Amino acid sequence: MWTPSTPFAPPGTNLVLEEGQTLTPKFDANGLVTTVVTDAASGEVLMLAHMNAEALARSIASGDAWYYSRSRQQLWRKGETSGNTQRIVEMRIDCDQDAIWIKVEQKGPACHTGRKSCFYRIVTPSDAAPKLILPSE
Amino acid sequence: MWTPSTPFAPPGTNLVLEEGQTLTPKFDANGLVTTVVTDAASGEVLMLAHMNAEALARSIASGDAWYYSRSRQQLWRKGETSGNTQRIVEMRIDCDQDAIWIKVEQKGPACHTGRKSCFYRIVTPSDAAPKLILPSE
Repeated sequence: MWTPSTPFAPPGTNLVLEEGQTLTPKFDANGLVTTVVTDAASGEVLMLAHMNAEALARSIASGDAWYYSRSRQQLWRKGETSGNTQRIVEMRIDCDQDAIWIKVEQKGPACHTGRKSCFYRIVTPSDAAPKLILPSE
Repeated sequence: MWTPSTPFAPPGTNLVLEEGQTLTPKFDANGLVTTVVTDAASGEVLMLAHMNAEALARSIASGDAWYYSRSRQQLWRKGETSGNTQRIVEMRIDCDQDAIWIKVEQKGPACHTGRKSCFYRIVTPSDAAPKLILPSE
């Protein structure tokens, strides 16, 4: 019986990583995998975050998005304090199992600035330096 | 006159990072920012990659996606050898300017395994360990 405290199996060969049916995440030197979070309804990219093994296991087991904060060096459930929780609709992993993509039902804004998405500025070339502009919506 | 070899300005305070109009990317200890790549038409997440300052500058200037390969330790233009190039339709940056999101016109598959997207497997809870399954499409 798998529980969130069961360790993940270690990564195998490239062939097994890419074509296998076993989740063997390739955590980086800091024990993290990068996670892309998109809005399940609109498809918009909401944020990027990191999961350690425990955050990943808890996310899978609970269906709530758990992350590891590198600045605070602690595990956190998204929305724990703000209420802006993320319910996972689908989780995917990439070819070499070092990146996660979750589609979520986002409650409230995903960004700590109060915006729906953290990606609220468009990078635009200009004669001087590239500018950041807010989309007109 | 800005050129791809003009250095980016260094990151300012959090307020300037989050609300400013100047691109001041926060590169990590290895000099990289993580980049999420989505298909401009379908919205699907195609891949995750990394850009160093030069890759970012070249991407902005040329409209082609340039990355930095951590394994090969070199700059590369996506599709350079495979022909599976990425034309950037829009580039966004996140609140603290340490992550990039590009929407691209992808020529051919984005994944080196020949799949359209690197995220071709769904992580599914099971009684034993979480399983990876291919979506039925």
